[in-house]
Amino acid sequence: MKKVKLFIPGPVELSQEVLLAMAQPLIGHRTSEFEEMLVQCWNDLREIFQTKNDTILITGSGTAAMDAAVASTISEGDEFVCMGGGKFGERFKEIAQSYGGVAREVKVEWGKTFDAAQVEKVVKESDAKAITLTHNETSTGVLHSAEAIGKIAKEYDLLFIMDAITSLGGDYVKTDEWGVDLCVAGSQKCLGAPPGLAMLSVSEKAWEVILNNKTKNYYLNLASYKKSLDKKTTPFTPSVTLVYGLHTALKELKNEGLENRIKRHRTLAKAAREAIKAVNLELFPDESIASNTVTAIKIPQGLTDEDIRGRLKKDFGILLAGGQEHLKGKIFRIGHMGNVGYLDLVEVISALEVVLKKAGHEFELGGGVTAAEEVYIYSK
Amino acid sequence: MKKVKLFIPGPVELSQEVLLAMAQPLIGHRTSEFEEMLVQCWNDLREIFQTKNDTILITGSGTAAMDAAVASTISEGDEFVCMGGGKFGERFKEIAQSYGGVAREVKVEWGKTFDAAQVEKVVKESDAKAITLTHNETSTGVLHSAEAIGKIAKEYDLLFIMDAITSLGGDYVKTDEWGVDLCVAGSQKCLGAPPGLAMLSVSEKAWEVILNNKTKNYYLNLASYKKSLDKKTTPFTPSVTLVYGLHTALKELKNEGLENRIKRHRTLAKAAREAIKAVNLELFPDESIASNTVTAIKIPQGLTDEDIRGRLKKDFGILLAGGQEHLKGKIFRIGHMGNVGYLDLVEVISALEVVLKKAGHEFELGGGVTAAEEVYIYSK
Repeated sequence: MKKVKLFIPGPVELSQEVLLAMAQPLIGHRTSEFEEMLVQCWNDLREIFQTKNDTILITGSGTAAMDAAVASTISEGDEFVCMGGGKFGERFKEIAQSYGGVAREVKVEWGKTFDAAQVEKVVKESDAKAITLTHNETSTGVLHSAEAIGKIAKEYDLLFIMDAITSLGGDYVKTDEWGVDLCVAGSQKCLGAPPGLAMLSVSEKAWEVILNNKTKNYYLNLASYKKSLDKKTTPFTPSVTLVYGLHTALKELKNEGLENRIKRHRTLAKAAREAIKAVNLELFPDESIASNTVTAIKIPQGLTDEDIRGRLKKDFGILLAGGQEHLKGKIFRIGHMGNVGYLDLVEVISALEVVLKKAGHEFELGGGVTAAEEVYIYSK
Repeated sequence: MKKVKLFIPGPVELSQEVLLAMAQPLIGHRTSEFEEMLVQCWNDLREIFQTKNDTILITGSGTAAMDAAVASTISEGDEFVCMGGGKFGERFKEIAQSYGGVAREVKVEWGKTFDAAQVEKVVKESDAKAITLTHNETSTGVLHSAEAIGKIAKEYDLLFIMDAITSLGGDYVKTDEWGVDLCVAGSQKCLGAPPGLAMLSVSEKAWEVILNNKTKNYYLNLASYKKSLDKKTTPFTPSVTLVYGLHTALKELKNEGLENRIKRHRTLAKAAREAIKAVNLELFPDESIASNTVTAIKIPQGLTDEDIRGRLKKDFGILLAGGQEHLKGKIFRIGHMGNVGYLDLVEVISALEVVLKKAGHEFELGGGVTAAEEVYIYSK
């Protein structure tokens, strides 16, 4: 059986240690042994979020934590400024609207980023309570400036809600320095843990809003999680095996070191971009705003998604991601996050060269891998 | 290291096969391979729910599915008749209220069950849209009659929302026969799967309400799950490793056979009850309404929770559950669900005899195990 290799932007492949951690017998979820493990996860996450704020775990997809952040702070009619520019950025708008809020969207073309003046204009024209941003937008491969939004949030006294689902653990997420009040992440991305856990950091300012908010929800109401924090537990039965997996993945992250890990991701991203250009393909976003955890690439004229991703899966068992929504068939995406190393990326590049050449795409064979090698050598 | 043995009413211990299933490498969550696994789970669940309705999976605790069932059908001001009588039954009331609904509670003393006339009175006096019931109330060890509520729901044309979290896979849950429109379950109970997945069966009538409802939520909005059903997928990234575990657990359940499994649970429950009486302890609920998956027992005068549960954990590594809310220190509970077998129960009973005798409780030593043996012999 050919092993499938995941290069989608999460869920990522797991280390043997993380996989085996999940095969350990269950312990009681209301015991001191489990409490200890939970508190260790909270503390480790605090370091990765670079925050002094509380961190919490929710059993659910990353979207569950995005939902929790918005639902717990919004009341009917509240205005939220929502940064667009991709599927996940726009999801915040949908969540805010679903709870009866008014979403003031900052429209951004997919593949581009915002400019601060445009954001400020929307903020000034609205009576906003909060501003939302998807930091690393996987649907377009763009890394937006959280710092810029943080400044605006501070100046206009807005709650800053940020989705760092695909940046936390792979790129800088300076929660406190940037003034992020509710920072959302997911287990199955750069952290290298199994899917099914979502995490949040919550500032004092956010807690004040949450505890005074007339929130209309239950399972994802952060006020319940606050009550459980002091008791070192979770309000509802946590997924014990997933916590085992996360606990081990966080230990591995600490062993690697956050700075080393971010450097690894940045090197891989640069190698991926140079390789893509060397095989005569075009990056989807401008390189200056390209993500360091996922690379989005235009499908060249004359080729189809099937020619590239279809063949990579069939011939090499390599799974890349396609475009989403209106970008379906127009771009494809390589995830290089979590446990992906340099040689894993080389496999993808080489396989990509093979399928491109076979499909008649013109470029110098070997050029992609050579470009990646050069980046790797000069990064050391 | 002494192994801890879980006899709490979930999460339950997992089989080796289920544990190892979760240690398998991740596959892509949007691939045909994963779709196949998901559809298999849906189909298997349909058999266990005894329904022709759609079944869906949510990444979250059981409470997430209770929330989803209520939130997706309630609109502000809607009246829901909520059966009380325990922590989980009352949770439905809290959920309904959290979404701006009006909960008409049928008050039931904890440890007792309702009578139909009392329920009908509340229904008649309200303008109810739905009725909620926790089928097997673990906080009190009571199995309520779902059939009786189903009849009332039918007569008054109410949506019937039932929490079968701790009965599904361990006792009869006749979703279609009883007319349950939204039946909720959790992975970590009688199904013998890891915690973190919740499941629902949804009737045509419920879908009609859901698709026309002005629901104010997002992640737990069942309308999104409906859209994903046809595409054989989930609206948000599912927990792949938990689906591996559930898939294997459902295969094991099918191998045992649902009827055999229910018979096993009923035999164990009867053995537990006879043993409890034989060691001069008193069941908390009346035996005629006692649960078949968890047994709730009064802590006798002169003894404390620490004398019983504390010693069982310290001396034998056996974890039982205590009382919840106002029953804390007044009762203790033995979970006998999922993979628990006759000899596992014998261990608990024997250990219980030892700690009771040491604590000065009066009964005939060996009587508990003897009573369990008798039940076991006559069940074969």
